[in-house]
Amino acid sequence: MANILPVVLSGGSGTRLWPLSRQQAAKQYAPILRGKSPFQSTLERLRAPDLFQAPLVICGQSGRFMAVDQAKKIGVDINMAMEPEGRDTAPAITLAAALAARRDPEAIVLILPSDHLITDIPAFHAAARAAAAAAEEGLICGVGVSPTGPATGFGYIRPGEALTDGARRIAAFVEKPDADRATTLIAEGCLWNAGMFCFRAADALEEIARLAPEVVEATRKALDAAEDDLGALRLGDVWSRAPKISFDYAVMEKTDRAAVVAADLGWSDIGDWRAVWERSDKDKDGNATAGDCVAVDSRDVYLRGDKRLICALGVEKLAVIDTPDAVLVAPLDRAQEVKGLVATLTALGRPEADTPARVHRPWGWYQTMDLGERFRVKRIQVIPGRKLSLQKHHHRAEHWVVVRGAAEVTRDDETFLVRENESVYLPQGCVHRLANPGKIPVEIIEVQTGAYLEEDDIVRIEDDFGRK
Amino acid sequence: MANILPVVLSGGSGTRLWPLSRQQAAKQYAPILRGKSPFQSTLERLRAPDLFQAPLVICGQSGRFMAVDQAKKIGVDINMAMEPEGRDTAPAITLAAALAARRDPEAIVLILPSDHLITDIPAFHAAARAAAAAAEEGLICGVGVSPTGPATGFGYIRPGEALTDGARRIAAFVEKPDADRATTLIAEGCLWNAGMFCFRAADALEEIARLAPEVVEATRKALDAAEDDLGALRLGDVWSRAPKISFDYAVMEKTDRAAVVAADLGWSDIGDWRAVWERSDKDKDGNATAGDCVAVDSRDVYLRGDKRLICALGVEKLAVIDTPDAVLVAPLDRAQEVKGLVATLTALGRPEADTPARVHRPWGWYQTMDLGERFRVKRIQVIPGRKLSLQKHHHRAEHWVVVRGAAEVTRDDETFLVRENESVYLPQGCVHRLANPGKIPVEIIEVQTGAYLEEDDIVRIEDDFGRK
Repeated sequence: MANILPVVLSGGSGTRLWPLSRQQAAKQYAPILRGKSPFQSTLERLRAPDLFQAPLVICGQSGRFMAVDQAKKIGVDINMAMEPEGRDTAPAITLAAALAARRDPEAIVLILPSDHLITDIPAFHAAARAAAAAAEEGLICGVGVSPTGPATGFGYIRPGEALTDGARRIAAFVEKPDADRATTLIAEGCLWNAGMFCFRAADALEEIARLAPEVVEATRKALDAAEDDLGALRLGDVWSRAPKISFDYAVMEKTDRAAVVAADLGWSDIGDWRAVWERSDKDKDGNATAGDCVAVDSRDVYLRGDKRLICALGVEKLAVIDTPDAVLVAPLDRAQEVKGLVATLTALGRPEADTPARVHRPWGWYQTMDLGERFRVKRIQVIPGRKLSLQKHHHRAEHWVVVRGAAEVTRDDETFLVRENESVYLPQGCVHRLANPGKIPVEIIEVQTGAYLEEDDIVRIEDDFGRK
Repeated sequence: MANILPVVLSGGSGTRLWPLSRQQAAKQYAPILRGKSPFQSTLERLRAPDLFQAPLVICGQSGRFMAVDQAKKIGVDINMAMEPEGRDTAPAITLAAALAARRDPEAIVLILPSDHLITDIPAFHAAARAAAAAAEEGLICGVGVSPTGPATGFGYIRPGEALTDGARRIAAFVEKPDADRATTLIAEGCLWNAGMFCFRAADALEEIARLAPEVVEATRKALDAAEDDLGALRLGDVWSRAPKISFDYAVMEKTDRAAVVAADLGWSDIGDWRAVWERSDKDKDGNATAGDCVAVDSRDVYLRGDKRLICALGVEKLAVIDTPDAVLVAPLDRAQEVKGLVATLTALGRPEADTPARVHRPWGWYQTMDLGERFRVKRIQVIPGRKLSLQKHHHRAEHWVVVRGAAEVTRDDETFLVRENESVYLPQGCVHRLANPGKIPVEIIEVQTGAYLEEDDIVRIEDDFGRK
């Protein structure tokens, strides 16, 4: 049996789970269900050494440390390639095939989205085996999900004649249908297109070169210019010139190697809050809660608390989503419209549309906890072994109180350790740096004072992560 | 024309506007409408020197500084008497009559609740004049509000024969009716009982002494034991033995001096969130918002934001109330049930049921802004001229960063000034005190560290406010 190279595509963002996920807080990294992120669940279902090699993750530069840290937390080793910008799935899958082919042109590659849910892991492994068997026959084989209802949010795949034991030819790809058409499609045996594909590296490259040569060309150039970046492969900027096109459209709809295996996976794209509610554990009244919530005389609600107590009284089929800086209240049946709401917020110039309250950086994260007229209080966490840039501010002074771990602080010409329950003062204009030389996260409370307290008052003198 | 002594009863709390108002955050002091509290609005409508003397406020000890500070903010001078505990309206009104009679037995007293809304101030002044004229005739005259709909949340007053120009005898008090009965009562000319009464001090005392002698007796004893407390009159603890009984029940329903003047005041008891919505400015879709809110495709909603952005998408007739530590979502039509929800939360042992996030103290307020495993961050504001107790903690150290004003800090044997953008460290066990000797509020960010960070780890060595 083939040892499959799983490739997880993790470059997207997604606003349909706003305010939890945002343009700068990708859905796949959000702890949506049972405290785990879809990215972590995706990696965990690849824990089968007889079946899968260590996964390759293709992600954007902004998500790279999040991916590394989340994988580390669940003890999964990953390899990583970084796109300078997202160019849809055709270039990313071409990259996956090219990287696999470098080591072994015969390698069997399984492409996986990073933000979907699969509850039946044995069925997923069986589907991977069946798709790999088809790939061994030279096919490019998708995994089609057996529909559980007339969903209008996905594309459908119409299977044709049987090709191998399990795999059938793809007769047609069907665009997202309306509900009536979806019912018909299901009656006709069509499957949901779940964005999973399996192929032999050399076969895919050959077929892409034939059907979309400019994609292969852009990938080759970007790989020629690629550099190692702290253990990940960073593609050359020429990547940005790759056509922005989906693998479905560029290859699958055109190749006569297209095949599909059907599978019943307990699959969901967890594409909106209604889908999250559907996949959550519920009480006898159909209420699902996450965080600190009390529902009284309510039915079929999804309540998601953050730090506050959420109380619902006498409501039905409603989602209430609390985050540190924004609260959403919307009927579950209108969850699809959250995307439009976010567009409205963006048009209103609201930072909450795109930027989360907790901002992740390569070195850890920060979050504003209090904001006054001439002061701002932040909580800052630094990952062991990492450090912030050497920097200065023109308009603010900072007080740091270490509340966990031991921080190494540079202030102008001196560098010293600040321990838990110790503090340090950084006057306006001083050159300073915060580092965590230890083995546990460092947490500090930063009190900024001054007349101007925005993020752009930062002059970076030196940075581990190439930021300016 | 009589110069009326207005007495504002401000001892209640109220949970029907939870989470904004709570047992320890009385409704009358909450900025419910247009940024003003009902207490402040009550005082403002007494700004008519030809008609009213400086108001006397009767309140509980916990609310006294709030009352003083809110009155000061709008530039109103008040006198104050403090009840050691609330004993319903009969004792409080007896106290008002007794205090008024000390200076002048002929004084005309007007009793006013502190938590109601009146929009037609000239009509209120006219009603006060009419009630005072009736009081001059020896009557105990209520102000009855002309109903605007068949409300079931109030008692009704049935007027009888005309007694003076404007005042009629009270034929009967009617308990809170159901909706059908309310419609009938209104058709019969009944009025809402709004808890306002006017009388000559000596007349009321005489009548109460006849109908409820034990109330007069308890009031007399509590006044004998009363002491001046920073300019307010603090009743003796014997007050707690006064019968807990309403003035309606103890006196008005029994006396043949009971009269009522009818008035159309634009009155509301703002008794639940629906009433608040009704009295708020609305957009063309019937949506009322306070704070930072966005309503999309929604109708007749009341959104109340605190610091976060509140987004409602596709909802109707819903209240969403955000506070720093609790969010309420409930249909406006079920706003009356919030009281029951709070009882549920109390039964669950939730501190949010009773205690607000921002805790007011005689010296100012504090609020927890962040809480970690071994640290807590508070924002603390100290009113000019006041100081916290001299205290120490067994289990925590504190870092104070002054972000506004200049604080006078005592630490063991030294006392020194800490200016804006300066900090001070208070090690575990040290005796310390924070004071504001200046003319503007002092604000500090306090970072506590330690294994135990609750309010009860405080040993008070000396206190301006008699706390232990």
